[in-house]
Amino acid sequence: MTAKRPAPFELSCPLPDDGADTIRLAHGGGGRLMQQLLRELVLPALTGQALTRQHDAAVIETDGRRLAFTTDSYVVRPRVFPGGDIGRLAVYGTVNDLAAAGARPLWLSAGLIIEEGLPRGELAALLRSMREAADIAGVRIVTGDTKVVDRGAGDGLYINTAGIGLVEPGIDIHPAHVQDGDAVLVSGDVGRHGIAIMACREGLEFEPPIESDCAPLGGLVQVLLGAGLRPHCLRDITRGGLAAVLHEIAEASALAIEVDEAAIPVSEAVASACEVLGLDPLQVACEGRMLMVLPPDQAARTLEVLRVHPLGAGASLIGRVERRARAEVILRSRVGSRRILDLPGGELLPRIC
Amino acid sequence: MTAKRPAPFELSCPLPDDGADTIRLAHGGGGRLMQQLLRELVLPALTGQALTRQHDAAVIETDGRRLAFTTDSYVVRPRVFPGGDIGRLAVYGTVNDLAAAGARPLWLSAGLIIEEGLPRGELAALLRSMREAADIAGVRIVTGDTKVVDRGAGDGLYINTAGIGLVEPGIDIHPAHVQDGDAVLVSGDVGRHGIAIMACREGLEFEPPIESDCAPLGGLVQVLLGAGLRPHCLRDITRGGLAAVLHEIAEASALAIEVDEAAIPVSEAVASACEVLGLDPLQVACEGRMLMVLPPDQAARTLEVLRVHPLGAGASLIGRVERRARAEVILRSRVGSRRILDLPGGELLPRIC
Repeated sequence: MTAKRPAPFELSCPLPDDGADTIRLAHGGGGRLMQQLLRELVLPALTGQALTRQHDAAVIETDGRRLAFTTDSYVVRPRVFPGGDIGRLAVYGTVNDLAAAGARPLWLSAGLIIEEGLPRGELAALLRSMREAADIAGVRIVTGDTKVVDRGAGDGLYINTAGIGLVEPGIDIHPAHVQDGDAVLVSGDVGRHGIAIMACREGLEFEPPIESDCAPLGGLVQVLLGAGLRPHCLRDITRGGLAAVLHEIAEASALAIEVDEAAIPVSEAVASACEVLGLDPLQVACEGRMLMVLPPDQAARTLEVLRVHPLGAGASLIGRVERRARAEVILRSRVGSRRILDLPGGELLPRIC
Repeated sequence: MTAKRPAPFELSCPLPDDGADTIRLAHGGGGRLMQQLLRELVLPALTGQALTRQHDAAVIETDGRRLAFTTDSYVVRPRVFPGGDIGRLAVYGTVNDLAAAGARPLWLSAGLIIEEGLPRGELAALLRSMREAADIAGVRIVTGDTKVVDRGAGDGLYINTAGIGLVEPGIDIHPAHVQDGDAVLVSGDVGRHGIAIMACREGLEFEPPIESDCAPLGGLVQVLLGAGLRPHCLRDITRGGLAAVLHEIAEASALAIEVDEAAIPVSEAVASACEVLGLDPLQVACEGRMLMVLPPDQAARTLEVLRVHPLGAGASLIGRVERRARAEVILRSRVGSRRILDLPGGELLPRIC
């Protein structure tokens, strides 16, 4: 068998590196190392450009209609966790990427990579979960693919979904549109998904149990847009948590963001779990929370509209965008001091989604 | 760690089975077991219907425009083989699924699942290969995702691509449109991809080496359609080979297909390799060959048009569709005898694509 032989490529990546010449787990964590990998290796190779505008979904035009198109693979471990499972996540995650582009999510593909030995009953249950999630999110899974890999070459089940949504005329949501003075909101409390996964892995039990926040945000965004609100930028908060998303937006807009720690909603349960586990809740993944950046005069109305929606009940105004010398993220602490909010390195929590 | 714990699902799949309650490698092979898995488990769970029309790509309508949408994951081993690599395959395979729906392939997504430890240089080279393939196929990779899994939970690199293409008005290609009397063509000699992979794995050397036929067929199909030809059905030949594709079409159309062994192009090199390896070339995968079913009065002109295209130079009329008591595939041998051409079981060649 030749599968594991060294590949006949020379090491041709001339880029500044973190010192390692192989991909490490941290490269998938949503933090600094992942952004570096994408920026230095993946994006230039695939697009032939030095730096592509990074966004959750591509918006493509055809006959004057704009489609949002996005993809994500899901490798979460364990496959079933409090509040969700890999099937549900695979639907909601891609729906949320489309929603973050301002699109109405409509169609999904499903690509399954199954490790030999996966129980049929578990596969069936996870697929049913995908289907239920699609029904709840109002999307249809219209095409799919199934591959089986040998034992030890996978981990039960990986799911890729790609999604297509329609972007209505007049909607143009992108980090590059963020402006000095914009208000920064989150749609609810942060960090629940990551803590739910971590608790599972570490065998920790909380009372009441902390459930993942995983939920489809397409409806919430459509309600906002339908109310005439025009956010400049939306981002669903996933790997790397709120901190990573704030950093990406600061960088893409070349503006600073100052957030107020006391205004960032973190449930008591997540806060205590983070203390026990030594985690910063601002770096912990969500799967049903949206960061929103919008003109300041729309902030109050946006909060009103969000708070009557079940998935926006915990919405909060957490900060504002400012022009500064550097595109950094500043956290104003509860006692009033200011510090730079770091981008997580990436090692925090592999295979969170 | 709870990743490997038994899942909390009961075994709820009440369907007739092959006797095993877990997924086996053969379920990914493109043959009988895979069709069974899709029909009995995957499709009903995802679509909520007893049986969905099986097709390489979904065709969805929006504002009177039709989009083809498809996905495939690529898990081929080894990642680099004579005539191609996993990156090239990931682009061409999805392009070919779109082409088989009669669509002009336009946009691709790329989802990478990287195993910790993959050399950066190899990743960079494979991504460049994807990019080159996209340029050759005339499509753009517009969105992507990167996940990293721990050592032993993957096998270097898996790539999922999803694709969107446009279906021009008046084009409606589907196995269900196949009619009694239709002509059956292949665009070139079959089995090269599978033999190239197999030779790699077994360490066999042929002189000259057998290279994969992997190639993008979008242009070839557009040339046909542009010439006013209207095939009823197109299918790119992949897992399970020509035999599997013929079976799928027979079943979807509820018609029989008779093919003439002597008319099926198989290169001398592939034929001898198949003898050495004990394989039936009709069950061996291609990655750049299209099966075409069309009205008999268009057969001659179709062959003409195909043969002036580099990817259709070896095109051949191999058989015809017939109404019979059963939707079976009959092979007329070189000596004139007729036998049922079996659908491969599926164990033939795991991880061929």
